[in-house]
Formats: sequence, C-alpha cells, structure tokens
Amino acid sequence: MTLPTDPVANLAALIRCASVTPAEGGALSALEDMLKPLGFSVERPVFSEAGTPDIENLYARRSGNGPHLMFAGHTDVVPVGDESSWTHPPFAAEIAKGEMFGRGAIDMKGGIACFIAAVARHVDRTGGPKGSVSLLITGDEEGPAINGTTKLLEWAAAKGEKWDASIVGEPTNPETLGDMIKIGRRGSLSGSVIVNGRQGHAAYPQLADNPVRGLLSLVEGLLHPAFDKGTTDFQPTNLEVTSIDVGNPATNVIPAKATATFNIRFNDTWTAETIQTEIHNRLDRAAKRKKYRTGKKTPVDYELVWRDRPSHVFLTRDDRLIEALGGSVQAVTGRTPALSTSGGTSDARFIKDYCPVVEFGLVGKTMHMVDERVALADLETLTQIYQRFIEDWFERGLPDHAFVG
Amino acid sequence: MTLPTDPVANLAALIRCASVTPAEGGALSALEDMLKPLGFSVERPVFSEAGTPDIENLYARRSGNGPHLMFAGHTDVVPVGDESSWTHPPFAAEIAKGEMFGRGAIDMKGGIACFIAAVARHVDRTGGPKGSVSLLITGDEEGPAINGTTKLLEWAAAKGEKWDASIVGEPTNPETLGDMIKIGRRGSLSGSVIVNGRQGHAAYPQLADNPVRGLLSLVEGLLHPAFDKGTTDFQPTNLEVTSIDVGNPATNVIPAKATATFNIRFNDTWTAETIQTEIHNRLDRAAKRKKYRTGKKTPVDYELVWRDRPSHVFLTRDDRLIEALGGSVQAVTGRTPALSTSGGTSDARFIKDYCPVVEFGLVGKTMHMVDERVALADLETLTQIYQRFIEDWFERGLPDHAFVG
Repeated sequence: MTLPTDPVANLAALIRCASVTPAEGGALSALEDMLKPLGFSVERPVFSEAGTPDIENLYARRSGNGPHLMFAGHTDVVPVGDESSWTHPPFAAEIAKGEMFGRGAIDMKGGIACFIAAVARHVDRTGGPKGSVSLLITGDEEGPAINGTTKLLEWAAAKGEKWDASIVGEPTNPETLGDMIKIGRRGSLSGSVIVNGRQGHAAYPQLADNPVRGLLSLVEGLLHPAFDKGTTDFQPTNLEVTSIDVGNPATNVIPAKATATFNIRFNDTWTAETIQTEIHNRLDRAAKRKKYRTGKKTPVDYELVWRDRPSHVFLTRDDRLIEALGGSVQAVTGRTPALSTSGGTSDARFIKDYCPVVEFGLVGKTMHMVDERVALADLETLTQIYQRFIEDWFERGLPDHAFVG
Repeated sequence: MTLPTDPVANLAALIRCASVTPAEGGALSALEDMLKPLGFSVERPVFSEAGTPDIENLYARRSGNGPHLMFAGHTDVVPVGDESSWTHPPFAAEIAKGEMFGRGAIDMKGGIACFIAAVARHVDRTGGPKGSVSLLITGDEEGPAINGTTKLLEWAAAKGEKWDASIVGEPTNPETLGDMIKIGRRGSLSGSVIVNGRQGHAAYPQLADNPVRGLLSLVEGLLHPAFDKGTTDFQPTNLEVTSIDVGNPATNVIPAKATATFNIRFNDTWTAETIQTEIHNRLDRAAKRKKYRTGKKTPVDYELVWRDRPSHVFLTRDDRLIEALGGSVQAVTGRTPALSTSGGTSDARFIKDYCPVVEFGLVGKTMHMVDERVALADLETLTQIYQRFIEDWFERGLPDHAFVG
C-alpha cells in the first residue's frame, strides 16, 4: 500500500475537489482516502442549524499510548472570483515554474497536504508516533463558521476526546516560510453607538439638537486616551471607527439621529467583559463632557449596541509546544520564527478552550487571490518542519502543567 | 367699480386657486383682477430653464411722480400634505371661529391680500400715493427658485425699473402680529469634505489609513474655535455638520472614504468669499494637525466641494424704511417690533442687490402645516399696518443715500 508521503500529490488531489463553502466537493473523501492507510479511524459528522447550510466535517484519530496531538484546519475554500483571470484553472492543480496553482493551495489545503505527508513519512520511518494524532477538519471556516470547528470540538469532547496540544495549519508566514509562528490572538469586539437628537432647521440650531455634535463627543471619548501600551506578548489595543452614518441629504436640515460603528482589537490587558465595561464608561464620561454640544445641559442621549459575538483574546504559554515547533522551523529553514499575536482571528480562538494551540503553515501572500499558488519547494519544506515537529513533540514528553489559557 | 379693500375677500379668492409650485392655478389671474381697477399695469412674464418647469410670474406697477416702493412675494404654495388630515379643505377658504383655513393663508397669500387691500384703501381715500407702487410676485419661491424672483428682478431692471425700497410680505412674526421685522439675513453656505484613506483589514490598521480618523480631525477644525461672537445686528456665525457618511457595512474592514457635509450661517463679519477662505484655512490647518491620525506623516488627504450657490449676508440700514415700517407696526398694534436678522434665507437676499429691503408679514406658526390658517383679525391689522406704512413712507420723502447694501 502506498502511503501519502508526497505533499504535492496530496495537495493536487485536494485542489481538484471544488470545495467552495459550503460544498464538501469530495475534499473530505480525498482526505479519508489518505488517512485510512495510515491507521486513522475517520468520522464525518454533519452539523445543521436553521437558516444555515448543513456542513460536513471530518475527525480522524490514530490512537497510540501517549500524549495526543491535534492538527486543525479546513478543506473549504473561498470562491474563485473572476475565473477567466486565472492563469491556470482554479481546480486543476496545474504546475508551472515550480508552483502549483489552485484555490486553497495556500489557505489551507496546502497545510493539510503537508501534515498528512509528514505523518505518513513518520509512520513509514518509525511505525508512527508513540501517542495519538488526530485531524480536526471543518468544511465551514470560510463561511459563517456556525456548523464548523466550534461544533466539531464540542462533538469530539462529548465523545471523550482530550487533546494535549494543537497546531493549526493556516498560512502564518508573511513573506518566507519560517517567518512567523502565531501563539495567540487579540480579542475582537464590534459595536454601534446611536445618538438621538432632535431634527430641525439648520438656521435655528438652538431649537434643534444636532446628534452629530453628540456623536463627535462620544467618538472622541472612544479614541482617547490610548487603551494600553501593549504587553510583552501583544500589540497595544486599538479601536477603529469603521463607519459613521447619518444619511441626511438636506443641507438646511439638522438630522435626528447619527450612528458610529467601531471595531476594537484588544490584548491580554483586557477580557471581552472588561473592555465592554471600559467602552461603556468612556461613552458615559464623554456623554457628560459633551464637548461639541454647546449650550445643552443634559448628557448626550445615546445607546450602545454590540454587534456579532466577541472573539476572546488568548495567549499560548506552552513552552514544550512552542519550542518543539520553533526548533523544527529553525532546524529545517535556518530561520528563527517570530512568535506573534498579531493579525485577525482564526479557529485557534475556539481550540484554545480545549488545549494549548499554535499556528504555523505556508506563506500567505496569494491567499484569497486570483492565481492562488504555492511553491513546490515550500510544500516539501513545510512537510519536513511538520515531521520534525511531530517527532520532537512526542519525544519531549508531557510537562505537568502544559496549558495556560 | 368695487375696489379690493377687503383683505378677507382678497385672500379667499387667492386660496381658491390651487397654486402648488409650479402651477399658476389661477392665482396670478386673480391678482390681476384685483390690481387693474387700482390702476396697475400688469405683466406676466414666463421664465424657462432646461430641466426645470416653466414658471409664470407677475409684475404690476402703478406709476406716480415720486419714489418707488416695491412689494415682493409669491403666490405659489407648498403641497397640502395629507389632505384628509385637514379640518377644512385646503383650497376652500372656509372660515371657522374667526380663522380662515387654507394652504397659503400665512405663507404668503395672506400678506399679498393685505397689501392689495392697503393700496386699495389708500387709493380710495386719497386717490393713491404720490409715487410709484409695484408688486413683484413669483410663482417659484417654494420650488427650485430658478425661474422666479432672481429672473424677475433682472427682467424688470432690464426694462429700466428702479426701486427705492422694498417690503417682502413673508410671515416674520413668531407669536403675535407686531413681534418682529426682519432687516437682514445671515448668509448661508454648504459644503462637503471628502477624506480619502486606504481600505484595509481592521486587524491591521498600520497597513490601512482610516479616513474616519482624518475626517474627525477636519470636523473638529471646522467646529473650533468659534467663528465670531456675533455683531451688533447679527447672531454669532454658526456651523452645523448636517451629515457624515461612510456606508461601510463590514466591521472588520477599514473604509476607503468618509464624507462630512456642513452648513454655515454667517453674519456680517464675513462675506461668502471670506468665509469660504476661512473654511479652507481651517481644513488645511486641521489636515496638518491630524489629531486622530496616529503615525501618519502626510497631511489628511481631503477635498472640499461647495454645494448649491451661497446666500449672501445682508443688512438693511435704510432708516427711513425701517422707521416707517416700525412706526406703523407700533401705531397699529401698540407693540415695538424687534429688528431681527435671525432665521433662514428668503427672496430678500436677491432684492437687496437692487434696493433696501425689509420683511414683515403675518404670524408664521401654521405655515407649511396641515390646517394652515390665519385669524381674520390679523388680516385686518396687517392691512392697517401696510396702509399706514405706505402713507408714512411716501410722506417722508427720499433721503440722499437711502441704500447701504
């Protein structure tokens, strides 16, 4: 039986499945075909929720007598965009000048292809790791993410699955393979501030109450002062006003209502709850200060509406996991990866509630773009990194307290 | 021949013409029928402009040997709104409890009805004023005002018409007849400030340039410091931000563009030109200060677009005109009218380029509302005020320098 030791062949098989969210597109079946010869037991639970498409997911485990390492990722991909703009068809896995073209080559069928190749080489060489390895693969990472990783984790945990560490194979390197490991993420919260004023004629401002003045006072209160100076592991907390909307077409009319929407990326100085309290306090203080409301005695009349669910901040402090991965990157590439908490959110924010988690994958430059593609050399290098990481992590043995949440 | 000495009858005839802008509705014909027996020559020029409806206007003159007084106004009215909400039909001129109901009763067929009654009584009693009286009546004051007063003034001036003073019959009294004469108006200017930034992901603000931050800096520069403290005759200049619009629905995206629109009402500290320069200077200074743009070295990238045409500030300093009108109000009502420059713009802003102009009419409370109505007692009082004013003004004789623009 041929083992899937070649990441290029693995990736080609995955790219040829048109698994644009929410379609499975054959990608999970292709995965199952690679994993079964390696001794994995494979389950493919489908999750549903009213108003969202059903999503098929995959959980595969190769059990052993020792610690349990989980690799997490997704086989769904974003749409191809303007297909006629692609140099090579997006689901053909064609190779040109040392690169394989295809949607998902980088984000993140490539990472999955390399991890499976790494496990296959390890099995081929040593008979396999002394502990357990599992793959937790969703088909709903690029979509609404409702029937994906969160439910898959709950489903597996309910079956008694426990993990000692996890690696997410998302593209983490900005420029070159080996640049960056992600060891945490800032939290994210969005909200809208709505100020209610009183409509009137622009020539008689004293008879009206311009909500734009109130809103400017509140927005200034949100932006100043700085929330913090950053921490050892994180950038400073940052708030961006992403929209202000009044929609008043008449220049001689003072409007009745004004809305500002903001997004805040917060570090481990805060929790989602404490940053919400801080936002409330800032708005209340600014509403009383009402810098831009000349002559009004009452505080600015506003309401705050939180949008979406918050993403919680997290930081992985598991030295064994970070050293095993960082050491492997360094040994294979000669580069010392930055340990970063920058950037947007990922499914790691869900996994961190179950075990320590780090993220490392390919170079992200062409992800989500027309002509998404990966260097074949990078596929080989990442496979070697993953293989070395698996060997190293299982050899190190488990510390007593691996997980600091 | 019966002269139109009864303002109630005059107004009833005018209200029964459904002259919602741009329709003439018979209102100018009704006017012509009243004016001809008084010795007025009447012309009804129609003005056109591509993209706007043709508008019929009226210019009537009763020539005499002496100074020339012009009464200005409009017979067009705003729409009735929800007709079923009216207690009495809007074009029936029904009288109930001492009030006549109808669209235009206050704004401003009532003022025209009273002025004609005043002239008629004067003609009836004395044979008419020793100088010339004219009525300059447009059908396009409540509409775009393109084919109305401006063109009518130009048309008459081109024929050689010259006026020594003008009274506009718009409703000027906030509560009670005799409250307020308007002797000038602030200027008005509107503009939009558009800030161009660079779109990006909210998690990577350093890679984007949030135009909302730049716009907030500019808006603060527009609002502070105060433009002036007001003058002897005018309120302080005031700027209102009437809209801010970004239209970005995605909370994880930093938008590319943000727009703020403002309206400024400026007093005689400024001209339209100097206030425009001041706005430019404030924006340029704020663009360099860029308070809300942390870490950007270049000034805020903005453009300023002026909207509509400016309304110029003006103040009438013609003592003879103001004293004749103020004295008449006092003599008839026992009230000392405030000489005000407050409120919005009116057609007086066009007339002031030709002769000194003041404004006095009915009580404005129900104008533009459902159940617009006028007290019959007010019609009689205003007629007496206008009659006394005509007599007084012609008796005073013309000063050498009547007009300060």
